[in-house]
Amino acid sequence: MIELRSDTFTLPTAAMRHAMVEAVVGDACYGEDPTVRELEETAAERVGKQAACLMPSGTMGNLAAVLAHVPRGSKVIAGAESDIYLYEAGGVSMCGGALLAPVPHLPDGRFVPDALAAEFPGDPDDPQFALPALLCVENTQNRCGGVALPLDYLREVRAFAAARGVGVHLDGARLFNAEVASGVPAADIAATADSVQFCLSKGLSAPIGSMVAGSAEFVTRVRRVRKLLGGTMRQAGVVAAAGLIALREMTGRLAEDHANARRLAEHLADIDGVDIDPGSVGTNIVLFRVLDERLTAAEFVAAAGRAGVALTEFGHGRIRAVTHRGVIAADIDRAADVLATVLALPRGGETGHEDPRPVRGGGQQ
Amino acid sequence: MIELRSDTFTLPTAAMRHAMVEAVVGDACYGEDPTVRELEETAAERVGKQAACLMPSGTMGNLAAVLAHVPRGSKVIAGAESDIYLYEAGGVSMCGGALLAPVPHLPDGRFVPDALAAEFPGDPDDPQFALPALLCVENTQNRCGGVALPLDYLREVRAFAAARGVGVHLDGARLFNAEVASGVPAADIAATADSVQFCLSKGLSAPIGSMVAGSAEFVTRVRRVRKLLGGTMRQAGVVAAAGLIALREMTGRLAEDHANARRLAEHLADIDGVDIDPGSVGTNIVLFRVLDERLTAAEFVAAAGRAGVALTEFGHGRIRAVTHRGVIAADIDRAADVLATVLALPRGGETGHEDPRPVRGGGQQ
Amino acid sequence: MIELRSDTFTLPTAAMRHAMVEAVVGDACYGEDPTVRELEETAAERVGKQAACLMPSGTMGNLAAVLAHVPRGSKVIAGAESDIYLYEAGGVSMCGGALLAPVPHLPDGRFVPDALAAEFPGDPDDPQFALPALLCVENTQNRCGGVALPLDYLREVRAFAAARGVGVHLDGARLFNAEVASGVPAADIAATADSVQFCLSKGLSAPIGSMVAGSAEFVTRVRRVRKLLGGTMRQAGVVAAAGLIALREMTGRLAEDHANARRLAEHLADIDGVDIDPGSVGTNIVLFRVLDERLTAAEFVAAAGRAGVALTEFGHGRIRAVTHRGVIAADIDRAADVLATVLALPRGGETGHEDPRPVRGGGQQ
Amino acid sequence: MIELRSDTFTLPTAAMRHAMVEAVVGDACYGEDPTVRELEETAAERVGKQAACLMPSGTMGNLAAVLAHVPRGSKVIAGAESDIYLYEAGGVSMCGGALLAPVPHLPDGRFVPDALAAEFPGDPDDPQFALPALLCVENTQNRCGGVALPLDYLREVRAFAAARGVGVHLDGARLFNAEVASGVPAADIAATADSVQFCLSKGLSAPIGSMVAGSAEFVTRVRRVRKLLGGTMRQAGVVAAAGLIALREMTGRLAEDHANARRLAEHLADIDGVDIDPGSVGTNIVLFRVLDERLTAAEFVAAAGRAGVALTEFGHGRIRAVTHRGVIAADIDRAADVLATVLALPRGGETGHEDPRPVRGGGQQ
Repeated sequence: MIELRSDTFTLPTAAMRHAMVEAVVGDACYGEDPTVRELEETAAERVGKQAACLMPSGTMGNLAAVLAHVPRGSKVIAGAESDIYLYEAGGVSMCGGALLAPVPHLPDGRFVPDALAAEFPGDPDDPQFALPALLCVENTQNRCGGVALPLDYLREVRAFAAARGVGVHLDGARLFNAEVASGVPAADIAATADSVQFCLSKGLSAPIGSMVAGSAEFVTRVRRVRKLLGGTMRQAGVVAAAGLIALREMTGRLAEDHANARRLAEHLADIDGVDIDPGSVGTNIVLFRVLDERLTAAEFVAAAGRAGVALTEFGHGRIRAVTHRGVIAADIDRAADVLATVLALPRGGETGHEDPRPVRGGGQQ
Repeated sequence: MIELRSDTFTLPTAAMRHAMVEAVVGDACYGEDPTVRELEETAAERVGKQAACLMPSGTMGNLAAVLAHVPRGSKVIAGAESDIYLYEAGGVSMCGGALLAPVPHLPDGRFVPDALAAEFPGDPDDPQFALPALLCVENTQNRCGGVALPLDYLREVRAFAAARGVGVHLDGARLFNAEVASGVPAADIAATADSVQFCLSKGLSAPIGSMVAGSAEFVTRVRRVRKLLGGTMRQAGVVAAAGLIALREMTGRLAEDHANARRLAEHLADIDGVDIDPGSVGTNIVLFRVLDERLTAAEFVAAAGRAGVALTEFGHGRIRAVTHRGVIAADIDRAADVLATVLALPRGGETGHEDPRPVRGGGQQ
Repeated sequence: MIELRSDTFTLPTAAMRHAMVEAVVGDACYGEDPTVRELEETAAERVGKQAACLMPSGTMGNLAAVLAHVPRGSKVIAGAESDIYLYEAGGVSMCGGALLAPVPHLPDGRFVPDALAAEFPGDPDDPQFALPALLCVENTQNRCGGVALPLDYLREVRAFAAARGVGVHLDGARLFNAEVASGVPAADIAATADSVQFCLSKGLSAPIGSMVAGSAEFVTRVRRVRKLLGGTMRQAGVVAAAGLIALREMTGRLAEDHANARRLAEHLADIDGVDIDPGSVGTNIVLFRVLDERLTAAEFVAAAGRAGVALTEFGHGRIRAVTHRGVIAADIDRAADVLATVLALPRGGETGHEDPRPVRGGGQQ
Repeated sequence: MIELRSDTFTLPTAAMRHAMVEAVVGDACYGEDPTVRELEETAAERVGKQAACLMPSGTMGNLAAVLAHVPRGSKVIAGAESDIYLYEAGGVSMCGGALLAPVPHLPDGRFVPDALAAEFPGDPDDPQFALPALLCVENTQNRCGGVALPLDYLREVRAFAAARGVGVHLDGARLFNAEVASGVPAADIAATADSVQFCLSKGLSAPIGSMVAGSAEFVTRVRRVRKLLGGTMRQAGVVAAAGLIALREMTGRLAEDHANARRLAEHLADIDGVDIDPGSVGTNIVLFRVLDERLTAAEFVAAAGRAGVALTEFGHGRIRAVTHRGVIAADIDRAADVLATVLALPRGGETGHEDPRPVRGGGQQ
C-alpha cells in the first residue's frame, strides 16, 4: 500500500527511537524535565518567540493558544476551510465559550477581503455582537492545496488585525513546509503572528507532539490551559527527545516531499480524466478531481485503495494525496500508474451504494 | 421623527396597558401565575404545539430553545445572515458550548443547497467533526429583506434535517408577518419545525416578551434553561396580559405594515439614486441602496436622521426601513419626500469622517 | 391560605399598576426607554454606585454580575448555603465556565474563616488550581435564617478579598431587609462590595425585576452579558415604573415584615414540639424544627398546607416561614394557631410515603 | 535528594525504554496504531470493562470521562478533598459547563453520608437546582492519606448512586495501589463504577499515560471528547509500549512502596514533635504534622528540602511523603534520620517570611 492519505502517517526515525531511550527525563508537571525544557527553548528560538510549550497534539496546541488569547463570549475568526474551524470538533466553542466565525477564502488561500472586514462590527459597543478577539491564519493551508501564503500577505493580515486591536494566531501545523516552499525562515513567518503552533509529527516525523510559541507571558497562560485540558504529561522528555531531532534535523527534508508532490501532480496531469493544475502544487499536498462521470470521488478513492494507493476524499468533489517521508519517488511513479489503471477500468459493475452527501472527510491536518 | 429603524419601537396599546392593570397574577417561578399560564396555553394552541413558555426576549427564546435541543460540543447550523448567528452575541457558543455553523443564503433567503449539505460530515463517527444537532431557520428573514419563506421550502428543509437526524428550530421572531404575507397559518409554518420562537413585541406591539413553543417534553427542558439564564420572572402576568392581546388581536394588523412597506418601496423606486426592487418587498422590511457615490450608506442614514427619518445602515451597502404600528401611510409619504430631498442635496460640505469598515450594524431583529 | 412560603408571592400594589399604565417607554434595547433609565439612575444612587442595570430576575442579576467579574476557568467563592451556589442551577459554571467553590458558614452566617482562606492556593502560579477571582456574599442570608451580616464583618470580608486581589459581589436580593434590620444604609452595605444585586420584587412588591449596580465600567460589561443571556427587554419601562415605586416607597415597610416574623417566632416558641430561638429572627425569615418524631419536616409542611398555612421544607430538617406584604399580624396569629393544631393532632393514620432523602427544597431566595 | 514529593517522579524502566524502541506504531488518530490498541484491550480486560482508551494524563482521563457522562448544566458530585475538585483546575466546569459539588469526607475517606444525600434535590423537576448526573469516587484517596476504600463501601456508594439514577466514575489514579493494599482485584473495584481512570505513571512507572475504561459505548464518547481536547496522539504506540509493561509487570511491585511508607511512618512516630498514626498508612502515602510551634509546615518542608529530603506541604497543617520505585528502604531510613535532625535543630535564626495563608499546595495526585 502506498500511503498518501496524510503525512501524519510518518513513523519515527531510528535516531528518534534511540533518543527516546537515552533521554534524561523528569516530572514535566513540576517543570523538571530537562529534555522538555531543551525542546521548548529550542523551539522558541527556532520560530523567533520568547517561549514555547510542548503539546500532545496540534489540536490542543491550537485550542490552548486560542483560549489563552480570547475571553469567553468573544469571536474567533478563522478560515472557512481551516483546520481550527472544520477539524477540531468545535473545541474553541465548547471549552472556550467563544464563537468561531468562518471566513471564506479566495482560491489562492487568502481570505475574501470584504468577508474578513465584515466580521468587525461597526459599533463595538453594541452588545448584540460577539466582539472579535483573534484572527487565525493557517499556513500552509491544507484545504487550499497546501499553499504557502506569501509573507507580504501575512504581514497585511497582521496589520489589518492590529488596526482592529485583535491578535493573530498562526496554525503552522506545517510551518516548515511553508518555510521550505517559500524560502522565508519560519521565524519571519511566525513574526507575522502573536502566537504560532507547529507540529513535530507530520513531515518532521516525530511520533507525538506539537509546540505553541509566543511571548513568555502568553506561554504561561497556555501552560495553565494545557494543564486544565490534561495535556501536561509526566516524563514527557521521552517524547521531547524525538521532537528535538524532528526540529533540528528534519525540516530540510521537506523539500523532498514537495518534489514528490509535484512529480505526482505532473503524472496526474497526464492521465485522461484527471483535473489538476500541477502549478498549484507548492508543498506536499496534491488536490485533484476525476472527471469520469461514472464514478464519484469517494468511489475513486475506494477503488484506488483496493488497487494499493491510499488517498482521501476531500470535499467539494476533490481528492487529496499527501507526500511524506514514507513515500519515495518510485512510489509516486507507481501510484500514478495505479491511478491511471483505476480510471481506465470499464465501469458499470461496481455501482454499489453511493452516499449522496457531500463529504468533508478524512482531511485531518 | 419618523421611526423606521425597527418595528421593535412599537409602544403598547391602551388595551394592553389596561390589561396589565387588571391582570390576575401570581409567582410564575412557582408556576402559579394564571395569566402566564393562559398566555402559554394560548400561544401553544395558536402555533399548533403542545406547550409554550414565556421569555423576556426573543434572544433568550432562541438561546433556551437551542440549548434545550443540542448537547455541548455539537454543531448548530444557522443562516449566515440569521439573527441567531449575527445578532445574539454568540450565546449558543458561550452558554451552550456549541459550534455555530453559518450557511450562506441564496438571494431569495433559502440556504445555498450544497453549503447546507456540506455541514454534515461524511463519517459521523469521525471525532474531528462537531456533530450537527440542529438546523435553525429564520422566517421572516430580516437580513434577506424580510422575506417569508415558502411553505414548500420549509417542508423540504425539515425533510432534509429529519433525514439526517437533526431537529429544526424556527426563529419566528416575525412569524405572524410570515403568516400574513404568505396566507399560510402560523401553525402550518410552525409544523415544519420542532420548536418555534416568536415575539409578542415588534409588530404585535406588546412591550415585553417572546414565546417558545414545542412538544411538552421540550418545553419542560426550555423552562429549566430559562431558569438558569435568569429568564423566569415573578409576577410575569403583568407582561403576559399584554402579550395575550398581542397574540389575539394584533396579528391581523400586520397587513397594514406590509402595505406601508410596499408603499415606501414604490416611492423609493421613483427617486433617482435609489436602488430598490419594490417587488422584493413582501413584509414590513424595505432594503435599498443609494447610488450616489458622494455619500456612503452610513452618511445617508445620518443625513436622513437629521432630516427626520430614522433608518438603519444594514451592511453590504444596504439601508433598512421597517414599518410598524407607529407609522401610518402619511408618514410613509412624508418619509419618501424627505429621503428624496436628502439625496437631492448638493454634496461636498459634509465629507467628515468616513468609517472605512463595512458595517454589520443596527439591524437587530 | 396564609402564604408563608416566600416573600416572592407579593403582588404589585395599586400604585405600581397605575404607574405601569402611565409609564413613558421606549425601546430599552436601544437604550431609549426613559423610565428604565430613571430606575437605573435611581437605583445606582440609592445603593451608592456609579451605575445600575435592570434585570428580569435576581438569578440573572447574579449571573451577569459574576460573569462580568470573572474569566472562564476561574473560581468563584460563595457560601455553601448561598442562593448562587444552591438555587441558581449552576449557571455560573454553565454559562461562565467557572468553578463554584462553596464555603461553609458559621451558625451566624459568617464564613468558616479557615475554609475561606483555604480557597486561595499557596502558589497561584500552579496551574492545577482554578484561580479565585470573586467572593460572593449574601445579605440578608436566606438559608442562615435571614440574618443581616454586621457591617464590620462585611468590611472584614472585603479587606480579606482585596488583600488577595479578588473582588466582592453582594447578592443583596433582600438588601433592604438588611438595611432596615441593621439600621445601616444600603449604600454603606453596598460599599463593602464591588457590585451588588438587589430585587425589586420580594418584600418591595414589584412584579418583576432586579438591579445590578457597580462602577460604570462594570455595568457596561453587565449589559453586554445581559444582552447575550436574553435579559434585555424592549419597552421595559412598564416594569421599571413599578420598580421605581418599589425602590422609593416600599423599603421602609419591611420593618412590618420583620415585626411579623418575630411575632410568629414567639408564637412558635410557645408551641410544644417546636424548636426555635426567637432571638435568631432578625428579618422576615423564620426557621424552625418540629420535634415530633412521628412526622418529618416534609410531612409537617404538607399537613400545615392542608390546614391553610403554606410553609416550605428547608433542608437539614428545617421549616421556613417568610413574612411579607401579603400577610398581616392577624394572619400570623391565626397561622400559629393552625400550626399548633397540626402538631397536636394524633398521629398514626398518615404514615404514607416518607422520602428518606434530606431535601434542599423550595427555598428559592 | 530523597524524592518523597510524589510517586509521579518515577522514571521509566530500562524495559520500558527498550519497548519504546521496538514498538510497532501507526497513526492512532486513524485508529491504526497496533500497540495502542493492544494497550487499550489489555487495560480494558485488566479492569474488567468492555473498552479502554489511552490518555496523555490522568487529568484528561478524568475530564473526558466526566464529560462523556454528564450533560452541560448538570451537577458532578466529588469529594471535597478529591483531585477532580481540587487539582484539576475546574476543567469540568470550564469545558463541560457542569457544576462541581464537593462533599466532605469522614476521616476514613468515606463521604459524610448526610452531605452526600443532601446533594440530591427533593424535587428534581425544580429548575433552580442543577441536577446531579455523576458521582466521582477517588480510590486510593490521596488527600485522605492514600486510603483504599473498602469494597463494601464502594458497593454501597454505587447502590446509592444507582438508586438516584446517576452513574459513578472512579478516579483510580492509584487503582493498583488499592488493589495491592486491599487484596481486591482491580476489576472488582472497578465493577463498583461505570467508568474508571487509572494512571500508567506514578508507581507503575510509565513515563506518560492514563487509561479510561468503561462500556464500549461510553469509551466511544470518551474518544470523541479526547479528540476535541487534543489528547489523541499520533504514533502513540511509543508511549503505549511502556504502558503495557507498566500494566503487566509493575502492579505487584507497589507492595514494596506500601512497606516503605509504613516503615517511614513508624520511624516518624518515633520522632519527638511528629504527629502521626502509623496505623493509618495503608498504601504509599504518609501524612503527618510537626508539632513544633516554632516552625510552620511550610517551613519544615523547606528545611527538610535543604537537608536532602523532598516533601510536600499538604494543607490543613499537614505534610505529605510519598513512596515509589525511586526510593528504597535505605532511603527511608536515611530520610527519617534527616527529618529528626531538622526537628532537633535550635530555632530562632530562620524566622524569614511566613506566608499566613493556609495552603492547598503541591499535592497533585
